[in-house]
Amino acid sequence: MSINVAFIGLGAMGYPMAGHLSNAGFNTTVYNRTEATATSWVNEYAKGSLKVTPRLAAIEANVVLLCVGNDDDVRSVVYGEDGVLAGMSAGDILIDHTTTSAELARELFQAANDLGIQFLDAPVSGGQAGAQNGKLTVMLGGNEQTYDAVIPLLNCYSQKHQLMGLSGSGQLTKMVNQICIAGIVQGLSEALHFAGKAGLDPTQVVDVISKGAAQSWQMENRSSTMIKGEFDFGFAVDWMRKDLGIVLDEAKTNGANLPITALVDQFYGQVQANGGRRFDTSSLITLLNK
Amino acid sequence: MSINVAFIGLGAMGYPMAGHLSNAGFNTTVYNRTEATATSWVNEYAKGSLKVTPRLAAIEANVVLLCVGNDDDVRSVVYGEDGVLAGMSAGDILIDHTTTSAELARELFQAANDLGIQFLDAPVSGGQAGAQNGKLTVMLGGNEQTYDAVIPLLNCYSQKHQLMGLSGSGQLTKMVNQICIAGIVQGLSEALHFAGKAGLDPTQVVDVISKGAAQSWQMENRSSTMIKGEFDFGFAVDWMRKDLGIVLDEAKTNGANLPITALVDQFYGQVQANGGRRFDTSSLITLLNK
Amino acid sequence: MSINVAFIGLGAMGYPMAGHLSNAGFNTTVYNRTEATATSWVNEYAKGSLKVTPRLAAIEANVVLLCVGNDDDVRSVVYGEDGVLAGMSAGDILIDHTTTSAELARELFQAANDLGIQFLDAPVSGGQAGAQNGKLTVMLGGNEQTYDAVIPLLNCYSQKHQLMGLSGSGQLTKMVNQICIAGIVQGLSEALHFAGKAGLDPTQVVDVISKGAAQSWQMENRSSTMIKGEFDFGFAVDWMRKDLGIVLDEAKTNGANLPITALVDQFYGQVQANGGRRFDTSSLITLLNK
Amino acid sequence: MSINVAFIGLGAMGYPMAGHLSNAGFNTTVYNRTEATATSWVNEYAKGSLKVTPRLAAIEANVVLLCVGNDDDVRSVVYGEDGVLAGMSAGDILIDHTTTSAELARELFQAANDLGIQFLDAPVSGGQAGAQNGKLTVMLGGNEQTYDAVIPLLNCYSQKHQLMGLSGSGQLTKMVNQICIAGIVQGLSEALHFAGKAGLDPTQVVDVISKGAAQSWQMENRSSTMIKGEFDFGFAVDWMRKDLGIVLDEAKTNGANLPITALVDQFYGQVQANGGRRFDTSSLITLLNK
Ligand SMILES: NC(=O)C1=CN([C@@H]2O[C@H](COP(=O)(O)OP(=O)(O)OC[C@H]3O[C@@H](n4cnc5c(N)ncnc54)[C@H](OP(=O)(O)O)[C@@H]3O)[C@@H](O)[C@H]2O)C=CC1
Ligand SMILES: NC(=O)C1=CN([C@@H]2O[C@H](COP(=O)(O)OP(=O)(O)OC[C@H]3O[C@@H](n4cnc5c(N)ncnc54)[C@H](OP(=O)(O)O)[C@@H]3O)[C@@H](O)[C@H]2O)C=CC1
Ligand SMILES: NC(=O)C1=CN([C@@H]2O[C@H](COP(=O)(O)OP(=O)(O)OC[C@H]3O[C@@H](n4cnc5c(N)ncnc54)[C@H](OP(=O)(O)O)[C@@H]3O)[C@@H](O)[C@H]2O)C=CC1
Repeated sequence: MSINVAFIGLGAMGYPMAGHLSNAGFNTTVYNRTEATATSWVNEYAKGSLKVTPRLAAIEANVVLLCVGNDDDVRSVVYGEDGVLAGMSAGDILIDHTTTSAELARELFQAANDLGIQFLDAPVSGGQAGAQNGKLTVMLGGNEQTYDAVIPLLNCYSQKHQLMGLSGSGQLTKMVNQICIAGIVQGLSEALHFAGKAGLDPTQVVDVISKGAAQSWQMENRSSTMIKGEFDFGFAVDWMRKDLGIVLDEAKTNGANLPITALVDQFYGQVQANGGRRFDTSSLITLLNK
Repeated sequence: MSINVAFIGLGAMGYPMAGHLSNAGFNTTVYNRTEATATSWVNEYAKGSLKVTPRLAAIEANVVLLCVGNDDDVRSVVYGEDGVLAGMSAGDILIDHTTTSAELARELFQAANDLGIQFLDAPVSGGQAGAQNGKLTVMLGGNEQTYDAVIPLLNCYSQKHQLMGLSGSGQLTKMVNQICIAGIVQGLSEALHFAGKAGLDPTQVVDVISKGAAQSWQMENRSSTMIKGEFDFGFAVDWMRKDLGIVLDEAKTNGANLPITALVDQFYGQVQANGGRRFDTSSLITLLNK
Repeated sequence: MSINVAFIGLGAMGYPMAGHLSNAGFNTTVYNRTEATATSWVNEYAKGSLKVTPRLAAIEANVVLLCVGNDDDVRSVVYGEDGVLAGMSAGDILIDHTTTSAELARELFQAANDLGIQFLDAPVSGGQAGAQNGKLTVMLGGNEQTYDAVIPLLNCYSQKHQLMGLSGSGQLTKMVNQICIAGIVQGLSEALHFAGKAGLDPTQVVDVISKGAAQSWQMENRSSTMIKGEFDFGFAVDWMRKDLGIVLDEAKTNGANLPITALVDQFYGQVQANGGRRFDTSSLITLLNK
Repeated sequence: MSINVAFIGLGAMGYPMAGHLSNAGFNTTVYNRTEATATSWVNEYAKGSLKVTPRLAAIEANVVLLCVGNDDDVRSVVYGEDGVLAGMSAGDILIDHTTTSAELARELFQAANDLGIQFLDAPVSGGQAGAQNGKLTVMLGGNEQTYDAVIPLLNCYSQKHQLMGLSGSGQLTKMVNQICIAGIVQGLSEALHFAGKAGLDPTQVVDVISKGAAQSWQMENRSSTMIKGEFDFGFAVDWMRKDLGIVLDEAKTNGANLPITALVDQFYGQVQANGGRRFDTSSLITLLNK
């Protein structure tokens, strides 16, 4: 293959995603703010190379992929004289895998479009594990033609990807995902907390109820660590609060009513205040068990 | 087989459960408050017979099973001169499949025990469909020996059954189940509501996110009807409120803290006030979508 | 005056209330479960006398007043061979100052009525201070004629009393009072907590905002102790949870929807779990400030 | 007096505030985006004059006062070539009576300071009535010296004003005020809703409980209109949501935990969705009564 790709942001997610692209034979150039990580990546994947600014990473690329932190972080690697747009050319494609606001997605779509560049918002789910084993889900917003063009890339690190609609729709879909999680995790936390207070063996309880109407991915994948009180892994509370902040802002715009989501967002704030910023989202249970 | 069983309460759940027992060859006597239902049952299952009081149904039975409504309903078929205890003998076994308080379970255990009768609290999950196709889950509380003795019966209508601990533990396990559901359904409702407000195709959204961290049995089994606004089936809001009332009472005793559960219970109250007493629990979404 | 009164329950409220009756010249006989308290009372108020059962206290009385703990406590001093009804005669009046369910009020009204005795439910507000300085508010349910007959007694310890409707209406009015308080105290807690986090001087803030739309009795009477973290006084969390439990049960019956009340009730449960059962209701702020 | 003042924003609040300044003898120049309102004002107060840009209004003024809508509205009248800063000189004072974020207050303080201009953030409470009868409360942030200098102006339309601390502290104090209100109004709504469901006369209930622990300004000033279902006046839900949005953003920064505030904010969102954007904040009760 002769497609050149650039990957900006080699964090928990981006590092393995870029690796899958390289392994699949795409010429992969990377940029990471903290250069040491980029050096590690180049050493690990041998064939890639690193650049010292987003712009330099983007220059030779046909497709530039981002996976950084929040809206401001994306803006800082996209715009400006060192940003990726400064290095890209008409006909190139920019994909943002960061979870951001839909507003930013539409803004970037427009900014890219003004330069003849195609843009897709493409937040992912599946966590670090999904990134590592190439089994992410990618929710995309943008034009169908652009989406079709990048399917071979998406296939490298995802088991499912779908175009959800116009620009911003990928981000909106991710928001729906996070709303579901907020309710599930709080419900599961209260349930396991109650089980403990009731003197039941929570592991046995989960075993019995996990095939029926109370079942959830969170129950199957997080209850055992919640029972053990282990939270030092997974999707960080800080990220979750960022995402719920985006959700609640968007809801103000579109008029959606989200009582439980708003409340759970405050509970996550309490987890942060208690020192759990880097804990997995399942740490909501710590507010009850103490 | 020569075991005689009596089944009290031929509602949505009890009717098919008693049917499975009869089909499996147990001599099944039934009682139902509204006699017409018992007559239908006898016609449908041919081999059984009906009696006009719980006591009369219980007289010949080695095992009596109940599946009625709430705590008071159970008391009304258990106690008194026409109640099952008046018809049972030492060595018999009483199983209550009704979802009740753990307190009632312990009370019945004691009342039965005073007569040399064994008691198991045995609430189920799996819904009417699970009862019909014999795939319920049964959560039991009581003595192991008693549990072992009734396994052949439980096998007739359940795919999973487990003894959770002493008397009351079955009911407590069912409570954990309902707590999980409250959070999940409200989260899912807010998510689908948001999806609609965001202009996404909710069916497509569910398709994409239903394999990851937002997945739940409710999402897989209820989102399509929620999207269509169909609630005329399933597990009734009235039952759910009964169950959450039991949960919140128990939490007052055991000291568990259930903020979201208490809030969702109020939301169900609003669904009731809006006329949705017989709607499926997924009807929480109607409070948002209007 | 020649009216004989009996006062059952010399707790934080009843002790001074009975004292005001005695001081006003009513022949006051008292009963208290823990006799030592009754002995103290008799010593303090000289003219009264104590009896060793509610029945004995009631025998000579024209009006019997109760102020004990909860529904069950009331039943235990009213019914049975040692209860007040066993000592009262047709034409006597029974007043219950305990905060109870409206259902109990209606039950007592009926039980009394069957004996030709008049009953008033008469919960109070104003706290221990109000009881001591005779400035309580009394909310009554029952017949107007009965109410008119006891006004001279009510005047001894209250600055305001009002008949709210038929039996139970006094209790229902008290419930409305407690619902208001739940929202106010939680709002005030969040406000003072926020003020602290914002680096403001909370005392100065209260001074500025306490004349306008944010003003409340709670702000004027509790903010200074909340700021200092003092909760060892006032209306106990245990009493508040009892009252909110009554409210939420009644709401289930009358169909009222009380989301915040239900949530704050859970927060009070957390205060209890943290050891604050005897703390003043303003201790909700301890859940935020830690 | 020879002080010249300029007032920018002649809305429900600004119009009468500017009027009081003019009546007190200050040379008052006004600017309003919709010029017709400024014309009315000049006609009504005779002595003032209007200008067609904020800058022009500010040129001759020693003190410029703003009362517009939200953060962006303030920025649009402060910055740019037509903004007030372009017309002001070193030594002048800028007062913002708009309710905004504390962040904006600090930004404006800095921007003004760079030009030798003093800035005070000065949100008010007391509503349109308070503005009309000159009885507002003003909460200020900034330097003491600046505050002292403008006291004669503040006295024209306020009964209370206080410097709360450095720049931003006025806004933070207003946030505390709004948090209190959110809890109080929702509690009061649930209480009056419950009273109705309980068959009580809510007016009588308010009469009885409004002297004790359930009392609030909202109860005294809003319960009668809430009972009548009148909401076409007062402090608009749109403004309240703006303010609660500011509160929740600030809480994310300072780490305050505001569960009820976040939930009530969502309830206000529902009032908006139901068409109540211009309703008074007491319209929360409409979500319960229907
Ligand atoms: N439906 C579901 O999906 C599930 C239900 N459950 C639980 O199972 C129990 C039964 O539910 P379900 O079968 O759906 O309910 P139904 O309302 O369909 O049936 C209730 C049965 O109990 C009888 N009954 C009720 N009260 C009395 C009484 N006081 N005296 C005598 N008989 C009485 C009714 O008799 P009659 O015919 O005369 O009315 C009827 O046979 C409940 O506790 C429920 O919470 C648990 C899991 C799932
Ligand atoms: N404290 C307050 O600020 C307010 C309280 N109330 C309500 O007033 C009632 C009384 O409160 P308060 O005086 O503070 O409570 P206390 O706990 O101080 O006193 C309770 C009294 O009731 C007696 N009592 C309790 N249970 C029984 C029983 N089963 N049999 C016989 N006597 C019993 C106690 O006797 P013993 O001495 O033996 O324990 C004691 O005299 C409660 O319903 C409360 O909700 C209402 C408004 C304000
Ligand atoms: N109303 C109340 O009870 C209270 C209000 N407040 C706060 O005071 C502020 C003003 O409220 P209120 O007077 O009621 O609001 P109104 O909507 O009545 O008036 C807003 C004023 O600001 C002007 N304005 C708004 N946006 C702009 C803009 N972008 N550029 C130029 N002018 C603009 C409007 O001009 P135009 O006439 O052209 O629309 C109008 O003069 C708000 O921050 C509010 O939160 C505080 C306490 C109580």
